[in-house]
Amino acid sequence: MSSDFSAWQRAVQAQMEQTLENFLPLIEQEPKVLHEAMHYAVLGGGKRVRPLLVYAAGELFEADEDAMARAAAAVEMIHAYSLVHDDMPCMDDDDLRRGKPTVHKKYDEATALLVGDALQSQAFLVLAEGSLEASRKVAMLSRLAQAAGSYGMCGGQAIDCAAVGHALSLQELEHMHKLKTGALLEAAVMLGAWAGKTLLAAESLALHAYSQAIGLAFQVVDDILDATADSATLGKTAGKDAAHNKPTYVSLLGLDASLALAEKLRQDAHVALLPFGDGATRLRELADLIVQRKA
Amino acid sequence: MSSDFSAWQRAVQAQMEQTLENFLPLIEQEPKVLHEAMHYAVLGGGKRVRPLLVYAAGELFEADEDAMARAAAAVEMIHAYSLVHDDMPCMDDDDLRRGKPTVHKKYDEATALLVGDALQSQAFLVLAEGSLEASRKVAMLSRLAQAAGSYGMCGGQAIDCAAVGHALSLQELEHMHKLKTGALLEAAVMLGAWAGKTLLAAESLALHAYSQAIGLAFQVVDDILDATADSATLGKTAGKDAAHNKPTYVSLLGLDASLALAEKLRQDAHVALLPFGDGATRLRELADLIVQRKA
Repeated sequence: MSSDFSAWQRAVQAQMEQTLENFLPLIEQEPKVLHEAMHYAVLGGGKRVRPLLVYAAGELFEADEDAMARAAAAVEMIHAYSLVHDDMPCMDDDDLRRGKPTVHKKYDEATALLVGDALQSQAFLVLAEGSLEASRKVAMLSRLAQAAGSYGMCGGQAIDCAAVGHALSLQELEHMHKLKTGALLEAAVMLGAWAGKTLLAAESLALHAYSQAIGLAFQVVDDILDATADSATLGKTAGKDAAHNKPTYVSLLGLDASLALAEKLRQDAHVALLPFGDGATRLRELADLIVQRKA
Repeated sequence: MSSDFSAWQRAVQAQMEQTLENFLPLIEQEPKVLHEAMHYAVLGGGKRVRPLLVYAAGELFEADEDAMARAAAAVEMIHAYSLVHDDMPCMDDDDLRRGKPTVHKKYDEATALLVGDALQSQAFLVLAEGSLEASRKVAMLSRLAQAAGSYGMCGGQAIDCAAVGHALSLQELEHMHKLKTGALLEAAVMLGAWAGKTLLAAESLALHAYSQAIGLAFQVVDDILDATADSATLGKTAGKDAAHNKPTYVSLLGLDASLALAEKLRQDAHVALLPFGDGATRLRELADLIVQRKA
């Protein structure tokens, strides 16, 4: 990754912090504790992978700045809400997230439940507002709702819950991750693109292939990191998958084959982007980032 | 209420059962347990007050059948998700809802959490699809997201949680209920109307006054019923407010003054509808239903 990419990445991350704060309810307004907890859940950390994907795809299609900011914020709010709910005692029961106490530890379980619920509403509200033409907004809202719902993120989570302690085939594991993580990563790419020029069918297909590859790569690398990194580096509890007897790429394929799969998916992502030429440099670099990250 | 109204009410309720089933994910598709639990949470009961409001307002403005069905289903899915989450142990910890085990009792807490999350996404998806013009969809999506979020239902729930065991003024209690219950009831009226003809400003104001009155009346009557009816009649645990030391209209005003307030709000609702003449008969009858119901 070029130093140019690092500067772009830091600039988007810094801008996202401000954008997310602008699109969250005001802490000064009632109910203050809920609003403060929503800010706590969303701000002050995170790799912002989904916003980076929105901006990289948006810039490729010359998207409007406000439309990109709204799409990025909406996708990140859905992601943040899912982390808050996933960390709750009835799910993963985790105390640590991004190096800080999880929302239900910092506040309480009822607040964590409501923070997640309200963040999901807020994500759709942010997308529904703004100056983009209505038909594009509806397409983005529909795609985000699909990615978040029972055929997307929530569905993947349900399959994941049901899979704990069970044997899962590689195909079943892949299906689970396609829903749980892949759907929202794909939505990030597509929403970013839709914030810009109208896509040709071939462009949609290429972006789809790219986002499928990085979606899967993201999870393979997550599994690798969970098995090899320490909690301090991850900012969350490491080794959880093995402790919970969860099926992972590492447990099914072994570490070396998992590393090779991640590298193959990175190359698949690059190949998918070939039609876009130099305009897709940021998307290419994001595929590299997703596979080569250390946390 | 006329026998004509009863027939209309039963027809809308029966139709809603079918409409909701059509707009829910298929039980036959994976993840089956999640989809089955979503059906369990939404179907087979409930007074369908919000869908009745959508249809009553929609028929007044000659709304398109599909647009009314989608608006009614979306609002009811948001309502159903809120019940599932409110019943969880970290909130009201309730075992009984509509005379049946609550979702976390029938399944488990993780499933209840995901059912609520996925139902919220599904509500926005149902509204985003369909053949209504995009600008109207966006207005409806935006209003529903506001009504569901931290300045609406979730915010009211947060204030309610924080209020347990505390002294609350009548004004604070009213503000809490405006968000917790009123916002979604108001949204039901407005979404139904927006599914039809374009509203004049005076018509919007009149509907707003009507929906504010019935929103508050709904909660006053809920408090009266919680204090006076038995669990079998309610289909949920009665006497909970007093047991949890929750501030209610009955605890603040006493039973007689609460009954008088409910009746005053019913009359306010009727007055607000005067400009609409006979076309608003259903909305008038719904105000009567909300105040005179026994469960």
